[in-house]
Amino acid sequence: MLKRSAQSSLTEQLAERFAERIRNRLLPAGARLPSVRECARQQGVSPYTVVAAYDQLLAQGLVEARPQRGFFVRDAAQKTPAAPVDKAPAALKSIVREAEGTAQQAASGSRFNATALIRGMFHQGSNTPQPGSGVLPMDWLQTSFLPAAVRKVMAEGALQDSLLGYGDPLGTPALRAALSHRLQDLGVPASPAQVMTTVGATQALDIVSRTLLKAGDPVMVEEPGWSVEFARLDALGMRVLPVPRRAEGPDLEVMARYCELHAPKLFVSVSVLHNPTGYSLAPWRAHQVLQLAQRHGFYVVEDDTYSHIAPGHATRLTVLDGLSRSIYVGGFAKILAPAWRVGYLAAPAALMERLLDTKLLSTLTTPSLLEKALALCIEQGQLRRHGERMRQRLAQARARSVQLALEAGCTFAAEPGGMFGWVETGVDTDVLAQRMLDEGYLLAPGALFHASRQPSTLMRINFSTTQDAQFWRVFQRVRAQTLEKVQKK
Amino acid sequence: MLKRSAQSSLTEQLAERFAERIRNRLLPAGARLPSVRECARQQGVSPYTVVAAYDQLLAQGLVEARPQRGFFVRDAAQKTPAAPVDKAPAALKSIVREAEGTAQQAASGSRFNATALIRGMFHQGSNTPQPGSGVLPMDWLQTSFLPAAVRKVMAEGALQDSLLGYGDPLGTPALRAALSHRLQDLGVPASPAQVMTTVGATQALDIVSRTLLKAGDPVMVEEPGWSVEFARLDALGMRVLPVPRRAEGPDLEVMARYCELHAPKLFVSVSVLHNPTGYSLAPWRAHQVLQLAQRHGFYVVEDDTYSHIAPGHATRLTVLDGLSRSIYVGGFAKILAPAWRVGYLAAPAALMERLLDTKLLSTLTTPSLLEKALALCIEQGQLRRHGERMRQRLAQARARSVQLALEAGCTFAAEPGGMFGWVETGVDTDVLAQRMLDEGYLLAPGALFHASRQPSTLMRINFSTTQDAQFWRVFQRVRAQTLEKVQKK
Repeated sequence: MLKRSAQSSLTEQLAERFAERIRNRLLPAGARLPSVRECARQQGVSPYTVVAAYDQLLAQGLVEARPQRGFFVRDAAQKTPAAPVDKAPAALKSIVREAEGTAQQAASGSRFNATALIRGMFHQGSNTPQPGSGVLPMDWLQTSFLPAAVRKVMAEGALQDSLLGYGDPLGTPALRAALSHRLQDLGVPASPAQVMTTVGATQALDIVSRTLLKAGDPVMVEEPGWSVEFARLDALGMRVLPVPRRAEGPDLEVMARYCELHAPKLFVSVSVLHNPTGYSLAPWRAHQVLQLAQRHGFYVVEDDTYSHIAPGHATRLTVLDGLSRSIYVGGFAKILAPAWRVGYLAAPAALMERLLDTKLLSTLTTPSLLEKALALCIEQGQLRRHGERMRQRLAQARARSVQLALEAGCTFAAEPGGMFGWVETGVDTDVLAQRMLDEGYLLAPGALFHASRQPSTLMRINFSTTQDAQFWRVFQRVRAQTLEKVQKK
Repeated sequence: MLKRSAQSSLTEQLAERFAERIRNRLLPAGARLPSVRECARQQGVSPYTVVAAYDQLLAQGLVEARPQRGFFVRDAAQKTPAAPVDKAPAALKSIVREAEGTAQQAASGSRFNATALIRGMFHQGSNTPQPGSGVLPMDWLQTSFLPAAVRKVMAEGALQDSLLGYGDPLGTPALRAALSHRLQDLGVPASPAQVMTTVGATQALDIVSRTLLKAGDPVMVEEPGWSVEFARLDALGMRVLPVPRRAEGPDLEVMARYCELHAPKLFVSVSVLHNPTGYSLAPWRAHQVLQLAQRHGFYVVEDDTYSHIAPGHATRLTVLDGLSRSIYVGGFAKILAPAWRVGYLAAPAALMERLLDTKLLSTLTTPSLLEKALALCIEQGQLRRHGERMRQRLAQARARSVQLALEAGCTFAAEPGGMFGWVETGVDTDVLAQRMLDEGYLLAPGALFHASRQPSTLMRINFSTTQDAQFWRVFQRVRAQTLEKVQKK
């Protein structure tokens, strides 16, 4: 909220609010700012204040005025005309594409871009739990055993080893052994030699893509799905083939058609507690997917990021397949230490050398001190117990959050489970998200989980951060206003 | 050496020696094993022992017999016929290419492959300093201030922050501020907002390539140069244009010709204490390179990995250019903590958002605990003093190593400076390297530093690991034997 009593003027506050959103890509390049009149009404300030704020943004080079059309967010890449001209570098193709999409449909409101949500996580307000956040609140993640493990590793003099060599290129042997045990408990037959640590699950997925695919290769990804995966594959120049994700698993007919038309090389799947729906794969569908993979010769990557908060008996592709044409990817960011960036993959023995080459070319090795500490926590059973506590706490949060969402007039598009709810709101959640930002809340609109970024009335909520009745009251009010405006049109 | 008194039989020892080299790629796919007779002579064992050892390797699927031609290392990727067929994935193109090259010229001895040297660094014997190693010996890197900094960061309760959030996506602010100061001391005008931390300098180079280039783009790289850079660009599908590196800098005529013919997008350079030659860039050549960059619109990446052991007044492209079309890359693995994997880049402000997107897509963030500890060491001046000690120690080592090399009949192809010597041996160093491995020494043959991997009589030595007269005695003997054999042919 803008505050009249604040030290900075209303103009400065308003300008800074827009500037921050532009910097954080919550207002992407090409997005149109609200009209002066609309902004004045929304913020409860005079049109003069809005004009002055927009003038400040113009002076800062953050927006540009287009005659008769209004104010638009400038493309940061164009800010320095002296820089070499680049013709849509691969890494930003998706964003450029979205920005273009935004420009075309500027009248319908601005769009989040591909990395907006992850940037949102790092947003200055990220210490406050946000409904759209992808992580558990910091106080949930607090443990005493992880700091203790770091101290123990250091006291053992192992720190010196951790400092002075590059470490084992596959990753710290103690951690790989512990992960091998964990995987075998899940039914994934991975020996320690088939386990490689990475800089978070993110790097594991990146390494797999870079090893198995080359630019132009078709790859199947579940939709809705995690937008960073779409953005990464797109940045690497792959052709993304979105496969609708159903309650029982990926849509098999669509996959079969892709196989005939495009001969995809890879299928990326979150089998268990799929993001954003919370769905978990049915055994019979898993079997069908693997039959298709065998028939058409594609690899399967199973991203098991949510395993620590999932029931132990969940169906996994890598278990059925016995890790023969499938690769398992995991991490700890969801229940433990996001900034430690410890992730891993397990793959067929015949692929390990090639995967390791890609790791060496991209980061050489991974930090061994953190891996050693984590190995201790796993060996001593602390991580497993912590996971159980998180599951219980999440179950309580889910019950409360679901009730509040239903009371607020939302419905669930998927049976609530795990960390995320996939919520039907009845209004365009891109528009809703922009308005909720004014109220201090970061939402995760449905469009963010679609490769094609079509408008959506769905949104993803984090059960751990939506137990607050106050949020739902604000949500109900803003949704009602948005509905009203839509109906007027 | 094989030992008759050892617990395992001579056959087992011999088989295991070859198996280990194959696993570590010191004998790459397609390489031919020595003939039974030659191997028996070299190892001082009976031909029966060799045949039995080769049989074990056959049974393990590590080699294959080709009628009338001998035993060849099998391609690991072909070991599991059930795995999906992949048509030369980008990530391994270079290695495949080399393997093919090897097969063609198998008669002239086997070749190291692109990642052989880095794998050599992680080799079981990596605790013993090796002449071909790219790092300083572990006991040089030992400090008390880095462990103390970790303890301090933890005691300050900052560990909790380091664990519970993802951290600042650009990197820990304290470290970026410290790096900004350091860069400004060098004359590189980088504000903290223009500094981004990475998982070692390796990831910084990877992020720059992925952000500025797309598959098929031409990129200029110095030759001789660090083979991992060739391999990475090749794996990303870029066209590598090798530019001869001279004492004064890159060959300008060759660069100009490339610019006219191929319009390269990027030039990757180690200006100061170039690897492997030890050359440092002359100011007038730096000016010419930047003029060319401006005229033809390519970016320059300056890899300043050796800055901590370089004289402070060295000429840098990013200083002359003022970081307008150039990107600075640095790290600490050479003087401090290789396994910590803390590196960074500094870039024009207009590029930062795009570079950050690539970082987010590849590893999300970087581990903040290690970054905070390193920031403390820089702020307190410990790193600078440590760098000075390393420089002095290296100067003494260099003097001794140069003398021994000259006494052993070698000459220096480049004026000795920094960490590496570029040594003329008079014999094919690929052959020499294979023979020295039998004696327990890892060499870095010249071919490893060439994009085209042509045979070379040069090798790179690490001054810190070649002060041992014993090594040079063995070297002289093996070189004489190799020369003798060549002259007989």
